[in-house]
Amino acid sequence: MPGRTSALNDNINVMVMLPLNNTYLFSYPRVSPAIEYARKTLERAELFAGLKFSVHYENSACGVDALYALVDTPGDERPNLVLGPVCEYAAAQVTRVASHWNIPVISAGALATGFRLKISETSEYSHLTRIAPTYLKMAETFQAIFEHFAWRTAYLIYDDDKDERNCYFTMEGVYMVLSDYHIVTDFAVLNSQEERVDADGIITSVYGSEVVIMCARADTVRDLMLASHRRKLTSDSHIFFNIELFNSSSYGDGSWRRGDKYDNEAKAAYSFLNTVTLLRSTKPEFEDFSMEMKKSLQQSGIPVCEDCSAVNMFMEGFHDALLLYAIALREVMSNGLTKKDGLEITHSMWNRTFEGIAGQVSLDASGDRNGDFSVIRMTDPEAGTHETIMNYFGTNGTFVTMPGFKREWFSLRSAPEPPPPKHIEPSC
Amino acid sequence: MPGRTSALNDNINVMVMLPLNNTYLFSYPRVSPAIEYARKTLERAELFAGLKFSVHYENSACGVDALYALVDTPGDERPNLVLGPVCEYAAAQVTRVASHWNIPVISAGALATGFRLKISETSEYSHLTRIAPTYLKMAETFQAIFEHFAWRTAYLIYDDDKDERNCYFTMEGVYMVLSDYHIVTDFAVLNSQEERVDADGIITSVYGSEVVIMCARADTVRDLMLASHRRKLTSDSHIFFNIELFNSSSYGDGSWRRGDKYDNEAKAAYSFLNTVTLLRSTKPEFEDFSMEMKKSLQQSGIPVCEDCSAVNMFMEGFHDALLLYAIALREVMSNGLTKKDGLEITHSMWNRTFEGIAGQVSLDASGDRNGDFSVIRMTDPEAGTHETIMNYFGTNGTFVTMPGFKREWFSLRSAPEPPPPKHIEPSC
Repeated sequence: MPGRTSALNDNINVMVMLPLNNTYLFSYPRVSPAIEYARKTLERAELFAGLKFSVHYENSACGVDALYALVDTPGDERPNLVLGPVCEYAAAQVTRVASHWNIPVISAGALATGFRLKISETSEYSHLTRIAPTYLKMAETFQAIFEHFAWRTAYLIYDDDKDERNCYFTMEGVYMVLSDYHIVTDFAVLNSQEERVDADGIITSVYGSEVVIMCARADTVRDLMLASHRRKLTSDSHIFFNIELFNSSSYGDGSWRRGDKYDNEAKAAYSFLNTVTLLRSTKPEFEDFSMEMKKSLQQSGIPVCEDCSAVNMFMEGFHDALLLYAIALREVMSNGLTKKDGLEITHSMWNRTFEGIAGQVSLDASGDRNGDFSVIRMTDPEAGTHETIMNYFGTNGTFVTMPGFKREWFSLRSAPEPPPPKHIEPSC
Repeated sequence: MPGRTSALNDNINVMVMLPLNNTYLFSYPRVSPAIEYARKTLERAELFAGLKFSVHYENSACGVDALYALVDTPGDERPNLVLGPVCEYAAAQVTRVASHWNIPVISAGALATGFRLKISETSEYSHLTRIAPTYLKMAETFQAIFEHFAWRTAYLIYDDDKDERNCYFTMEGVYMVLSDYHIVTDFAVLNSQEERVDADGIITSVYGSEVVIMCARADTVRDLMLASHRRKLTSDSHIFFNIELFNSSSYGDGSWRRGDKYDNEAKAAYSFLNTVTLLRSTKPEFEDFSMEMKKSLQQSGIPVCEDCSAVNMFMEGFHDALLLYAIALREVMSNGLTKKDGLEITHSMWNRTFEGIAGQVSLDASGDRNGDFSVIRMTDPEAGTHETIMNYFGTNGTFVTMPGFKREWFSLRSAPEPPPPKHIEPSC
């Protein structure tokens, strides 16, 4: 087109692989409004004039269906870009084939540590970019905290559902980072879907560890905190952390409340609980996006909470994924390449910082997003209200305490006892 | 063809997926003579007149290349039958896609427990037939032995190379079977490729267990037996087993010998070692096959031992795989179906007993071969010669002792001590 040398004039075939089922926070009915929002933004932008996106959705069912959808696509109809899958096993299968076919994959999932070796020659995941902070990045937060307070021992408690295995993969990241940092770790695994959780039994094992880190369902965390509080472990000899993975608002104010007779006790126990979660963003553009998402979800009949953000990490991530892809595509096209040059587009996305919908997004040299995390805690035990007390910024590894922070919350007043003997099954 | 209504008159496109590298016992240079032998047998047989096989080989490299070879095959050129892969991860990836495309897969590998749920509606491995006894079938041998001698506790020691992971998957099978049978198990994992094996350190952990079961390289087993013998654990308080997986003749007469100063001590230690391995066959047709294989391997420049069988489990298995496929294909074609009816062919292979090259081959109702296993032991500690002392027949679950067997070898004369406290890392 004369006089418009910068026009991209191309149509990008995008295959989104996410589950249809809304029990997943990253179901495509939930995430599609965010992708659509990004598509409209891009198609309006002068910088990307001429660029069109044909987006179609495949139900990954958090399983092997995603792989089937990809391998059943005839050679001349293969997508230029895959968004998703989120579930680790589905993502591994799809990314392997997509990488082999030179197709970039961007996911707000695939957070497990097993994907991290992407840059070796023989990597099966060479074309994977992770737009949400991985479990390993989250674990760096713990390393920074352990370093800051000079703690040496940790006890990890996690719920392994043997299905999605989010907490399993989360603790794998924590374990790897803390081990590298020579923290002594022990652990207990439970499966709340298959068996009654013996909270008190588990808590008997934490005596020897300074820090207890939990990843489990909200009800299980409550049981564990109640058991710890009854055994008087909360106040002086142990520090308790809970990992809240996906900004899904099942933590913070009122999270102890169930309307049962243990509410008061639980509230008291929760005044000793620290929750590690994604740093929440507040920039004005994000509020617009958030309002829009709430409206779209409500129109689809998906329930949204009234006084909290309707946007979770996955919606934000897949929105930003399309932005990032467009920026990278524009760059490689300016170098004379095309949308078919999947590896070059992928590498152009890596080691890059750009403005996402909620704030700056920074990808490291291996295409994994650097994460910013917060520690929140009940700062008013009477009112039961929570505040952010510490923030960790992954891009530069800095760790800052906030005004509500109190040093005494993180001081151990008595040494932990030695741990009792313990046996673990091998096929974990 | 008039008067030859039984002629099959079809050409079967067979894709063999095995590694090229001869360091694998199941490399395709090793296995191809066996497949060729079966092909010739079938093409000569009146029963299969008209049936031709086009066999081509893909280098699976024991990895993701097998998947790539399959997904890169255009729709109209897809194979009618896949033989292999053997390596668990490669087999999982290929079987998933082949099952989705209705292509039967027969492997003499894919022995891990994870493949066992093949008959559910949603199984990813619906088209997989396993022609060699799986790890779970091998583990049944231990159950039979434990039941026979009324042992209650086991200590599992295995070498996990984090690559092929044969011993890991083997012990997973043993652990699952023994746990179902309420045997108390504990374990130690080592990685001889990455670290020096502290044999004595490992042996300090076995005190509390009646039975020690090892799966490791020959040198590691020797170190462990030496350490046990020096601690006087061999003679009265513990029973030692070694699992020799693939009939690869690194056990039996002279297996303790290294030409170092520990040979005599090792020989004495090995007089307490029991080795569980595949039952060896002796029928005359097998000797012809064996001679033929030896010749073919020598022609390819692959070294074969002089006084032992050149045939391993994989060669035998893939030979029988082609036979089994032909029998099943013939049956479904007699019912008016074709080579395209992959699921029907697969199910026709299951729950079937036929005459393989080394003896009867019996597939269970899930398409897994029933296994026959032997326990061999040094029966003359002076000469150091070994004999089979027990056999286990998987098809009917019977367990028989042989003439060389002595009851005293399996009698515990003192109770094991309680095990010392122990901690295990979570991300195993």
